[in-house]
Amino acid sequence: MSKEITSRATDYSQWYNDLIIKGSLADYSAVRGCMVIKPYGFALWENMRDVLDRMFKETGHENAYFPLFVPKSLFEAEEKNAEGFAKECAVVTHYRLKGDTENKGKLIVDPEAKLEEELVVRPTSEAIIWNTYKNWIQSYRDLPLLINQWANVVRWEMRTRLFLRTAEFLWQEGHTAHATAEEAVAETVQMLDVYAKFVEEYMAVPVIKGVKTESERFAGAVDTYCIEALMQDGKALQAGTSHFLGQNFAKAFDVKFSDKDNKLDYVWATSWGVSTRLVGALVMAHSDDDGLILPPKIAPLQVVIVPIYKGNDKKDLLDAKGKEFVQQLKAAGIRVKFDNNDNARPGWKFAEYEMKGVPVRIAFGLRDLENNTVEIVRRDTKEKSSISMHGLVENIVKLLDGIQQNIYNKALAYRDSHITKTDSWEEFEKLLDEKGGFIAAHWDGTAETEEAIKEKTKATIRCIPLNNEMEEGKCILTGKPSKQRVLFARAY
Amino acid sequence: MSKEITSRATDYSQWYNDLIIKGSLADYSAVRGCMVIKPYGFALWENMRDVLDRMFKETGHENAYFPLFVPKSLFEAEEKNAEGFAKECAVVTHYRLKGDTENKGKLIVDPEAKLEEELVVRPTSEAIIWNTYKNWIQSYRDLPLLINQWANVVRWEMRTRLFLRTAEFLWQEGHTAHATAEEAVAETVQMLDVYAKFVEEYMAVPVIKGVKTESERFAGAVDTYCIEALMQDGKALQAGTSHFLGQNFAKAFDVKFSDKDNKLDYVWATSWGVSTRLVGALVMAHSDDDGLILPPKIAPLQVVIVPIYKGNDKKDLLDAKGKEFVQQLKAAGIRVKFDNNDNARPGWKFAEYEMKGVPVRIAFGLRDLENNTVEIVRRDTKEKSSISMHGLVENIVKLLDGIQQNIYNKALAYRDSHITKTDSWEEFEKLLDEKGGFIAAHWDGTAETEEAIKEKTKATIRCIPLNNEMEEGKCILTGKPSKQRVLFARAY
Repeated sequence: MSKEITSRATDYSQWYNDLIIKGSLADYSAVRGCMVIKPYGFALWENMRDVLDRMFKETGHENAYFPLFVPKSLFEAEEKNAEGFAKECAVVTHYRLKGDTENKGKLIVDPEAKLEEELVVRPTSEAIIWNTYKNWIQSYRDLPLLINQWANVVRWEMRTRLFLRTAEFLWQEGHTAHATAEEAVAETVQMLDVYAKFVEEYMAVPVIKGVKTESERFAGAVDTYCIEALMQDGKALQAGTSHFLGQNFAKAFDVKFSDKDNKLDYVWATSWGVSTRLVGALVMAHSDDDGLILPPKIAPLQVVIVPIYKGNDKKDLLDAKGKEFVQQLKAAGIRVKFDNNDNARPGWKFAEYEMKGVPVRIAFGLRDLENNTVEIVRRDTKEKSSISMHGLVENIVKLLDGIQQNIYNKALAYRDSHITKTDSWEEFEKLLDEKGGFIAAHWDGTAETEEAIKEKTKATIRCIPLNNEMEEGKCILTGKPSKQRVLFARAY
Repeated sequence: MSKEITSRATDYSQWYNDLIIKGSLADYSAVRGCMVIKPYGFALWENMRDVLDRMFKETGHENAYFPLFVPKSLFEAEEKNAEGFAKECAVVTHYRLKGDTENKGKLIVDPEAKLEEELVVRPTSEAIIWNTYKNWIQSYRDLPLLINQWANVVRWEMRTRLFLRTAEFLWQEGHTAHATAEEAVAETVQMLDVYAKFVEEYMAVPVIKGVKTESERFAGAVDTYCIEALMQDGKALQAGTSHFLGQNFAKAFDVKFSDKDNKLDYVWATSWGVSTRLVGALVMAHSDDDGLILPPKIAPLQVVIVPIYKGNDKKDLLDAKGKEFVQQLKAAGIRVKFDNNDNARPGWKFAEYEMKGVPVRIAFGLRDLENNTVEIVRRDTKEKSSISMHGLVENIVKLLDGIQQNIYNKALAYRDSHITKTDSWEEFEKLLDEKGGFIAAHWDGTAETEEAIKEKTKATIRCIPLNNEMEEGKCILTGKPSKQRVLFARAY
């Protein structure tokens, strides 16, 4: 193989980078911490985005678009939110460049074009959106307001990783306004469910739904709900968050509505988002040492067909048959490519599509034509079989379903075998170092203990699972009383 | 009517703003020159985007995503491009805010977090993209490279107008690389044709295809092709541009490829874009003094159904029938809404949907139920008719087609009657002031004359039409010899 991938056992982190780069999902860019999403990676994101967008619309949301920039004075308005993001803000201070008189052909920032008020490049849009909602909401008739935005945001992270943590990333952010706290909480939970359904059913990644502790909460939220996934190295990954914002932003931006009895009250809010980070989660959850393994439901390409021949002998026959297959598969709604490119040999192509995680490969040569068979290889298990050309489409449809199910089951079995209960600190540390995964342990409920555990072990409380079992116990670190176990893990 | 619109005759510019705001397409924002695209406006843009995206993919292009920021040193690399956009650049100079010690709860830019190299917020992405292509292109086998990006860009304009000219706007930008000049020119022309087809067939706005003069060319291009549309006030609007970039960017970023004979040469480039500005063009081309008129093919809502009733007498019957219509129309792929909201009266609803430009309104009451009829009103002509409930769907489908055709024909007739030839300077000025539209006049081919005419009349050369008729004549201003007429107009 021309493209060597570092194995997971050798260096998990390098394995991940290799997959992203050699699988053609993304590339590094000239801008610190920003990446280029390549066509193959973007097609994957488009498929994910389209499914999510449909789910948002089915739950009554509409898309809109708000400015990229947030004037500093607005950004400051909700203090906790501002404080939480201040350290990561890219700031526009000038609006013009001019020729450098000392250096021909070079430009400098024009000092005369300094903005009166600096503009923050949005790290999230609550501030600019709630400043707008102020004008849109007067009465209960204007509620609920259910809006989503697909956008780029910028958070100046010091340590970045392709897809997982980049200075600029693409995401969607829902921002809703409601007449009552109950309605807003119901919306928060509904969107968490939408995320969980998407990640499990489409990305084939099982998740745990839960609530964040105060320390891990979104800056400005009353409660942060989350879905947590587990990667193959035993580290957790937060795959999506849904925030109940209470009346915090309504108060910061003075957004009131009159109810049916003409009484004025502040509006209740939610916000929720998932990002291109999900692509990283997808890659790390399923792939192997030979390349990507993509779930059929969102794979840019579901099937690739490779003709096997030497020289040009009867290549026309193979081409004709290949195109016939493409037509049949496309008619069944399958994303398929016929790769009859002469510049590459079948073996090279096999490795290439394996690297790219195409779920099913069909190969056939002249002998197959005579026998009316094709060779099928599924990417997830690498099982090879020879099947009849008759009923090919039906078999492929079934196979794609089977692959989707299989990779989910595999990830689920891994996840389920990596939730470990312990009541001993010694074992807690050992589990983190040797087994990984989620550790269900008692915690005394204080931020101090949470912080102390993080300092000692790098593990954080990923969440308090929804519908958690109540169980008396003693805090794993302090021995103080606890009413329930929470899930600890090292995380991305 | 609750929402008064300024008439076109009174104040065309105010009429336009009224339509955008009261038609719920967009809103002003707290950021100078930036707007909020409201859900109704965004749904319109989504429909436009989806059609264009399909057309791009059908012509072999793939989507990708490149960073929002361009390091200043890259931005400078293609000098003409840099010079052309330098005056409009928003510049990020810092990456952190911190608490203001003198003003509790306020933030200031952290002077210690100054970037070593400033980042330009992309006004267009040639620089960052060609810097990336350098790594992607080695051989003729890597060509052509056909990539499109949907993105936000920022150009710090001093005078802004909703949709037509905003500091931030949404757009798509295609960036392609080719082995020969001929191929690149063919691509440039192909994409111009795609734009023309989209604007004419979907937006129902006739356009003239042409080439820009040197003064109006995109900064860094060898040739800029454009489509020019005419608004109802007689002003022209550039609706899309497609640039042949020659080897300018390949040379600036040192992008070479080896051909089949292993000879190295610089790559040939194109770029092409349309933006949310098209929404402004759409509004100004068709709408009237009662509100928006939207072409059925891209209208967010094609049909609205309003039940007519007093009190709650037999409202159930109307609701049941309305929902039946919705089901039938949706099954035929029609975007339809049944508005049985009790909070508003039919007259208010009629005005509201007229304002929003919904192409067809269906209304029916109890008497209609008995007669098996409904009342239909088309938005473009306001013609009202009573038709049978039987065959309703087929009639609506036909009607929508008819409306699409009619508003195109109307815009075409207006446009065609507003291309005027003249050989007299006096008449030239008079035509601009009194009639407007395109004026076909001779020009001596110099940038000086072009500039002089612009200073005297505010008219610019919109384009030299493709396949222009060759005709000897004398320049309208200088009397110097000319070989063809060019199209002048005042423009948005």
